[in-house]
Order: sequence, then structure tokens, then C-alpha cells
Amino acid sequence: MTLRIYGDSKSGNCLKVKWTAERLHLPYDWVELDILKAESRTPDFLALNPAGQVPTVILRDGRVLAQSNAIMLHLADGSVLIPSDPYERAKMYEWLFWEQYSHEPYVAVARFQMTYLGKPRESLDGKLVEKGKAALARLETQLAATPFLVGKRLTLADIALVAYTRVAHEGGFDLSAYPAVKAWVGRVEVALGIH
Amino acid sequence: MTLRIYGDSKSGNCLKVKWTAERLHLPYDWVELDILKAESRTPDFLALNPAGQVPTVILRDGRVLAQSNAIMLHLADGSVLIPSDPYERAKMYEWLFWEQYSHEPYVAVARFQMTYLGKPRESLDGKLVEKGKAALARLETQLAATPFLVGKRLTLADIALVAYTRVAHEGGFDLSAYPAVKAWVGRVEVALGIH
Repeated sequence: MTLRIYGDSKSGNCLKVKWTAERLHLPYDWVELDILKAESRTPDFLALNPAGQVPTVILRDGRVLAQSNAIMLHLADGSVLIPSDPYERAKMYEWLFWEQYSHEPYVAVARFQMTYLGKPRESLDGKLVEKGKAALARLETQLAATPFLVGKRLTLADIALVAYTRVAHEGGFDLSAYPAVKAWVGRVEVALGIH
Repeated sequence: MTLRIYGDSKSGNCLKVKWTAERLHLPYDWVELDILKAESRTPDFLALNPAGQVPTVILRDGRVLAQSNAIMLHLADGSVLIPSDPYERAKMYEWLFWEQYSHEPYVAVARFQMTYLGKPRESLDGKLVEKGKAALARLETQLAATPFLVGKRLTLADIALVAYTRVAHEGGFDLSAYPAVKAWVGRVEVALGIH
């Protein structure tokens, strides 16, 4: 069977998986679920993934896998999107975990609240804004020094981080304050064909 | 040089790295930093890790790595703590990312607020308690079915998840409501020699 991706096109976490599959020329079927309508919380979906989260995939052998960065690591196993050098691979892991802990919960959540829940920027929790800016500043420091997050080549770290960074303005973050980040977003979009 | 781990012994994230090194018989030096005294926010430490987070390690070749789960993956590369089967390895990644996104921010943060900031249980954000319980319930479902999180053997997923689960009571969570989790904590503690 073909790889099946259950995802919500509004979610950067879901798009990461789609872009990885496309970059690797892996055929896939996309099953659109609307998280705002709780379509990832139905009994049928919870039987697939008890965490009720998208993305969730059914692999070609019928087995199920969740967590965007885990799915990317599995799909890209042995490909050029994962550095073969052990230290560079470890730095890629570092960015992937940092993304889920220190970037997504602020940059993506601010966007979700403003763009999908209709909250005005002024009503966001100050911590969301402050920590979102800190995450973007940290990306800026790295990307002022290297063209991609891990050295000279596109890796899963770039795909994971670009997903919500490229739409950070929808959460009220102005990327023009982060010129190296802005230029990197352009490079990654071109590389992924999502310009 | 010897592997150097900068960590705070109160932090499960730091202990994960220590336990992994010990399990693999890797010699290391431990540099204790007190996060409550902002010792991970000094200029010297920020030069090492701009994110100001522990654990941070200096590897034997002098290079720096951060993020507990990334450090564990690097130290354990090629060892029995990482399944060689690609699907089992992917499931281990799934648990590692789930831990940082859906377990640590609730189970560990509730403990931190109660035990280190002295907040009474009643004053915790209801979301912390609710999502912490959901995380423990999800572990219970898995561990009622399999002896370790990924099948029949100890992997990094168990080390990562046991770190804050074994002290969940310090955040007001009663593990006797999760008997399979409680039994698993005992098994993992014995395996790691931290009983």
C-alpha cells in the first residue's frame, strides 16, 4: 500500500512530513483532518493514534507512526536529509528536539491563537511572545553563521524549523527583524519547491 | 579529554544523560549547576550553549552538544539502547519527541513548581494537572501491553520517560492509579541501578 499521511494543512507539523515525502520522491496519500473540528479526536482516529495528534502516518507495511519529527526521521532514514557524520547528525537531533520544546510551543501557538482562534495580538500571553522572539533570535545567531542549521546542506532540521518560522508573521512576529532567518526561509522554500 | 556533563541533579533531563553514560560504561565528569541560582544563564555558560539550558555536554573531542534526548541519541549511537530494527527505532523516536512535547511540560513542570518553587498543589494550573494525567494514562496503556515502551527491551525511550515519571508524585501525581507504569518504573530503576 501507499504511505498514508493523516494531516491538517494548517499545521506546520503536518506539512513537515508532506515536504519530506515530496523531497524524497515518496508517493503518498494525504487524508485531510480538520483539528478545529476535532477530527483527530474521533474514536476511529484515536484507535489509530491514542494521542489524538496529527500528523499520523500509516506506513507502506500497514504500521502506524506519529510525531512529526519521528516520522521525518523514519522516512528519511539513510537519505541525504540526515547527515552521515555522527556529530552533524547529533546537532540535527538537537535542533529537532529544540524545535518541539522551545520554538513550536511559542511561535506556532501564537499563530494558532491569532489566525485560527481569532485572538488579537495584544491578548496573547506575554510569555508566548517573549519566548517566540527568543527562539527566532537563536535561529538568527545560527543562520548568520551557517547557510543551513547544520552546516552547508539542507537537513531535516531545516524542514522542521522552517514549517512555523515561515508563517511566524501570522502569529505577529516580524521576520524583518531577523534578516538571516528571512533569507534562510527563502532558501529552504526554494529547495523544497514551496516558494 | 573525558566527556563532561553540565547538569543539575534536580533535573530529570540531566539525569537521563548521566544514566545513559553509566549504562554504556562511558567515563564522564559531572559539573553541577544550580538552575534555581541561574547558573545556566551566566555569560560563560551561554557561550557554551546560547539556549542557556542543561544538560549540555562537551564531548571527548571538545565539541558541544545540548538537548537531553539528542545527547542520549549521540552517546548511544550503535549501542543496544537504540533498536536496530528501523520501525522499532522510529517508535523510540516517537516516544522521545512525545516526552518533550506532551509529558515533560506537564509532569516535570508540576513537580518543579511544587517541589522547587514551593507552590501548593491546589495552586497549579488545571491544564498542567489534566495534561500530566493524560500523559501518565497514555504510558499506562502502552505498559499494560509491553514490558518496555518499545517492545521487550530497554531503550532510550524508557530512560527518557522514567526520568520524570519516577518522581511524578513530587508534582502531586499518584502513580498507584497507574499500576503498569509503577511496575515499569521499578523495572527500569533496577536495570539502571538507580533503585
